Amino acid sequence: MSEIQVSETSEASEVSEASEKPVPGDALAGRAEKLDAADALAAVRERFVLDDVVYLDGNSLGALPAHVPDRVADVVRRQWGELRIRSWDESGWWTAPERIGDRIAPLVGAAPGRIVVGDSTSVNVFKALVAAVRMARETGGSGQGGEGGGGGDGGEGSARDEILVDATTFPTDGYIARSAARMTGCEVRPVAPAEVPGALSGRTAAVLLNHVDYRTGRLHDLPSLTAAVHAAGAYAVWDLCHSAGALPIGLDEHGVALAVGCTYKYLNGGPGSPAFLYVRQDLQERFDSPLPGWNSHAEPFGMRPEYEPAHGALRGRVGTPDILSLLALEASLEVWDGVPIEAVRAKSLALTDFFLECVAAYVPAGRVECVTPAEHGLRGSQIALRCPDAGPVMKRLIERGVVGDFRRPDVLRFGFTPLYVGFGDAERAARVLAEVLAEAPGEE
Amino acid sequence: MSEIQVSETSEASEVSEASEKPVPGDALAGRAEKLDAADALAAVRERFVLDDVVYLDGNSLGALPAHVPDRVADVVRRQWGELRIRSWDESGWWTAPERIGDRIAPLVGAAPGRIVVGDSTSVNVFKALVAAVRMARETGGSGQGGEGGGGGDGGEGSARDEILVDATTFPTDGYIARSAARMTGCEVRPVAPAEVPGALSGRTAAVLLNHVDYRTGRLHDLPSLTAAVHAAGAYAVWDLCHSAGALPIGLDEHGVALAVGCTYKYLNGGPGSPAFLYVRQDLQERFDSPLPGWNSHAEPFGMRPEYEPAHGALRGRVGTPDILSLLALEASLEVWDGVPIEAVRAKSLALTDFFLECVAAYVPAGRVECVTPAEHGLRGSQIALRCPDAGPVMKRLIERGVVGDFRRPDVLRFGFTPLYVGFGDAERAARVLAEVLAEAPGEE
Repeated sequence: MSEIQVSETSEASEVSEASEKPVPGDALAGRAEKLDAADALAAVRERFVLDDVVYLDGNSLGALPAHVPDRVADVVRRQWGELRIRSWDESGWWTAPERIGDRIAPLVGAAPGRIVVGDSTSVNVFKALVAAVRMARETGGSGQGGEGGGGGDGGEGSARDEILVDATTFPTDGYIARSAARMTGCEVRPVAPAEVPGALSGRTAAVLLNHVDYRTGRLHDLPSLTAAVHAAGAYAVWDLCHSAGALPIGLDEHGVALAVGCTYKYLNGGPGSPAFLYVRQDLQERFDSPLPGWNSHAEPFGMRPEYEPAHGALRGRVGTPDILSLLALEASLEVWDGVPIEAVRAKSLALTDFFLECVAAYVPAGRVECVTPAEHGLRGSQIALRCPDAGPVMKRLIERGVVGDFRRPDVLRFGFTPLYVGFGDAERAARVLAEVLAEAPGEE
Repeated sequence: MSEIQVSETSEASEVSEASEKPVPGDALAGRAEKLDAADALAAVRERFVLDDVVYLDGNSLGALPAHVPDRVADVVRRQWGELRIRSWDESGWWTAPERIGDRIAPLVGAAPGRIVVGDSTSVNVFKALVAAVRMARETGGSGQGGEGGGGGDGGEGSARDEILVDATTFPTDGYIARSAARMTGCEVRPVAPAEVPGALSGRTAAVLLNHVDYRTGRLHDLPSLTAAVHAAGAYAVWDLCHSAGALPIGLDEHGVALAVGCTYKYLNGGPGSPAFLYVRQDLQERFDSPLPGWNSHAEPFGMRPEYEPAHGALRGRVGTPDILSLLALEASLEVWDGVPIEAVRAKSLALTDFFLECVAAYVPAGRVECVTPAEHGLRGSQIALRCPDAGPVMKRLIERGVVGDFRRPDVLRFGFTPLYVGFGDAERAARVLAEVLAEAPGEE
């Protein structure tokens, strides 16, 4: 995979140029052309299998990297078909969860040894939340002012008996949080992320937060929320599904305790590719998993009846890893070779700025309302437009080759994956949106 | 896939022939040839990718079905690469867990709608055990004599506060059982399967049992143990990892409450392919999962903050399914077209009988000890031979093209997958074993 030369500032300046000079009508197509020509990441698009569709659903399922089919074929035909059981050693199957974790690590600001890959996001949220509650009770918090608790999972007399959950979360996090609470003697309290600091108390054991809201695309303030939670003696668990691979996260830098992320969106790992779990280094020996499967044992092939957890992030492993999905993900991650996440972020903001500019120019005022914050510091890598007839509008957009998705009740969601979406795509998406809206007046 | 014509009795009669006439030396090779020629399942071997190795490790990782690489390539190139997000509907991704469950169902004696596929065996053992404890407390047992409990997971005052676990279990089941116990206020008591009936009491909430012991290959009595557990007002959770695809199980017939099984052994689903979970029909509305992810919601795309479980076995789903591994498994299951599980069982017993006969003929007396029961009703589809220097012996066997595996401290394990292992393979394995043992006298 050839190296991409990325100037530190090229996208950023294009961003300001794009943002500062809104121009109407056809001029935008010309602008898009120039922005694409100046885009240092433009060549990365060649690494993917794409067609003439404008694919703005990479925040749901990333596109296929072009080299992945051959790699998967090798896993199936040679590693499984010929080497068979020997591949657990010879093809590196056994160590894939931590090896792939190390490959993801630089994209989320983590050093090696902090991340393992495996299981679904939901299962990893369960592991992380239960472990967070246990840690909060064990030592009275994250080391900065907690009160301590009763220990054990029954919550008998524990002062730490509350889990705060982002009230706007993707539902599975809330469902799983309620289960983790039920099984650890906690209560769940839904709280808007901005209100978390005021809701923290000596009762708070853990706080489950989304880095980017799946519906609105709002980016929450990970550094300050993490600091507030930890200062209250609780542990923050961050759901990175909509930020991993879209923007710099800085897990180590910001002292995040636990985080979970998805790999089939901006990381392009393929449908249902396994999620990842990050555990801060100094907490790894205290990570007490509710799913202590044999893959997390210190000596997995010792077949010992007593459980003894492995050291490090390996504790997050559970059962036999799903090798086909894992190794497809590993291959997919090669599209990141030579691509700094900072360049991806700069292009993401430029793309979403430009898309909003085109929407403003093409779509009659008042027809859609942008629910994604305009401020860069509050924006992920998607644009969500509220529109009363969002369902049928998205259907027609897809028919015309602009693929986003519809989130009930009234949101058009457009994800911008900077690795393969260009400015011309953004302009075309806005233009087709305007055409569709012109044909079908909005109705509730 | 062409239909296999299987006479109901052909293998069984070959079995008796093989068992009743032990013959020494070279005559066994001739016998093997005749048995292979008369084997109604012999043609199924053509459905797999095999070489000149005798592969007796299908109880760890099943061989690759020949049509699977092209099917996986289609999933990757067309379903992911071209249809992308549309495949969740158009390629049937969303419904894969229950559709593939229905494909496995007849192999384990279940009607449609009882099984979902997804997550690892360990994760499914956790779901099943916690659900079993909750059910036992909810109504005072399985409907046949329980005492009832306090409800909730804290175990406050509940009479049902004990989980019995097969003391000889594959370790992950024991580790997970301890976690499930800890999180539901139970204690774990290890009990040998035969002693389970005597260990049951009004305290017993759940019993976790292996159908076939992973080390010795002993087959436990599922019908009578299930009945005993249920009569005591508890619920049995069966681990079918070493029986699914190897012998008839009769889950519905024997009233099994909950069962978990692996798909990468005798079901040939590929490395780490997801496990399955069976929930008896009349218990499905009471199945209260500790991992209630959005995929088990009654309306998963409603994005509702309150959890409402789906009906049926769907409750066993958790997060987004790992599509590549799942669809590789689905394709693999086509090797079962026209293959009755009863014929597989008959051939399995004939193969293991014949292997033991060859071992007895070739290997000097006292050099190995068979720890797998001779009685058919107590035998799974593997032969375990105790041998003081089992580790180095297995290494040399593998070097000479006979692939089994070594289980500490002293067991040589040979799995017989009737779909692709023949009598000639069994004879050759025993012959090579004798050669290896003749060269290297046993040492502790």
